[in-house]
Amino acid sequence: MREVLAQAAFQLFLERGFERTTVDDIVARAGVGRRSFFRYFPSKEDVVFPDHERCLAEMTEFLAAVDDGDPVGAVCDAARIVLRMYAADPEFSVQRYRLTREVPGLRTYELSVVRRYEQTLAGHLRGRFGADGDGELRAEVIAASVVAAHNNGLRLWLRSGGEGDPEAAVDHALDLVRDVWERPASSSPSLEEQLEKHLEKPVPAGGITAGSGDSEVIVMVAAKGTPMWRVVQQIEAAVGES
Amino acid sequence: MREVLAQAAFQLFLERGFERTTVDDIVARAGVGRRSFFRYFPSKEDVVFPDHERCLAEMTEFLAAVDDGDPVGAVCDAARIVLRMYAADPEFSVQRYRLTREVPGLRTYELSVVRRYEQTLAGHLRGRFGADGDGELRAEVIAASVVAAHNNGLRLWLRSGGEGDPEAAVDHALDLVRDVWERPASSSPSLEEQLEKHLEKPVPAGGITAGSGDSEVIVMVAAKGTPMWRVVQQIEAAVGES
Repeated sequence: MREVLAQAAFQLFLERGFERTTVDDIVARAGVGRRSFFRYFPSKEDVVFPDHERCLAEMTEFLAAVDDGDPVGAVCDAARIVLRMYAADPEFSVQRYRLTREVPGLRTYELSVVRRYEQTLAGHLRGRFGADGDGELRAEVIAASVVAAHNNGLRLWLRSGGEGDPEAAVDHALDLVRDVWERPASSSPSLEEQLEKHLEKPVPAGGITAGSGDSEVIVMVAAKGTPMWRVVQQIEAAVGES
Repeated sequence: MREVLAQAAFQLFLERGFERTTVDDIVARAGVGRRSFFRYFPSKEDVVFPDHERCLAEMTEFLAAVDDGDPVGAVCDAARIVLRMYAADPEFSVQRYRLTREVPGLRTYELSVVRRYEQTLAGHLRGRFGADGDGELRAEVIAASVVAAHNNGLRLWLRSGGEGDPEAAVDHALDLVRDVWERPASSSPSLEEQLEKHLEKPVPAGGITAGSGDSEVIVMVAAKGTPMWRVVQQIEAAVGES
């Protein structure tokens, strides 16, 4: 019944436009009573987006069950639930995308749905980051980033007419967000910090160290003025280590 | 006239609620004709947000004139134009915030206004980043981050009843976004890339290089198996350089 009503409404929106289609037109086309319509859809707008409520519920359920270790990754995965809903019916999704661009009332409705997704993601992050310090700020900004990235990838696919695999564009967009937000909030580590990590031992102030880590190069850092015999000794030790 | 209508509308919304106030009520209270109302405001919703159009125009003008050097900084500054509009009349802004939270129609309207700010900022960034590669993606995600950060700071101030300086919270929120998005877009440079930059010469594949850059340390990178005499030679050359 739900499907039948959505299908009928959509045909009419495409034939005569959204504004000029009434609920009476839709129920006549679907061959059902007016009360049936309102049992399934609170308004004419809702019939255009029949799956968002289910999708929001699925997102909430997913986030409630997800592992705690990677909150940014978790909200990216939650956003992919929306993508899968669109990808499940490319033709319907593309038609709806075109219709939504034509009808201001639908665009506004869509914005309010997108906002609810964003708040769901932000709520999850807030729970993980805590309300102290910048927890709430970071939660809201990351949720907005994830939604914007997801929608950028989704829109690329919709604009292309729903051809090909939508996952690639969305994965790429979400990777950009994860990459940015999972780096430490302070500035990038200094060269010395990176070297220490690479060498897995501290560079003593004004001293010397050398090591090869796991890679095929030897890296040495020495204070200027370090005697050459100490440099050689350190490098030999580093080579011997490997 | 515009001010008088907005004032009258607002009093009525607070007295009897948004839904139960008609345009006729507003013009009666303001003592003007119905046509005057629609000369200034396309709808009842618009009267609640009388300054957004002006603010959007100011933002567009600001971005058209801004220096090219720091696009993320420029959109942060553009967002602050919205803050200043709210801060210019704390009492009105706080009342409106409370009203907007009560009335779904106003929340939806506000979302569409926020979306227009976001698109204005994204448009500026797209122009700076270019449409190639990730230009559009980065533009949209950064614009969404800036808007979310701005609104987080603004909301803190509105929730506090408009007490104190709203700039501090917004500055802090926008700083977080700038810090994150002004770092390089790709993943951090590798250790080898950082060393090359530090040494200001390329590390030859399977070879050796050493240098001191401008700092007080000598950094050497060598392929494993490089003869020790070559290591010593390179380090001596690097020390000699400095």
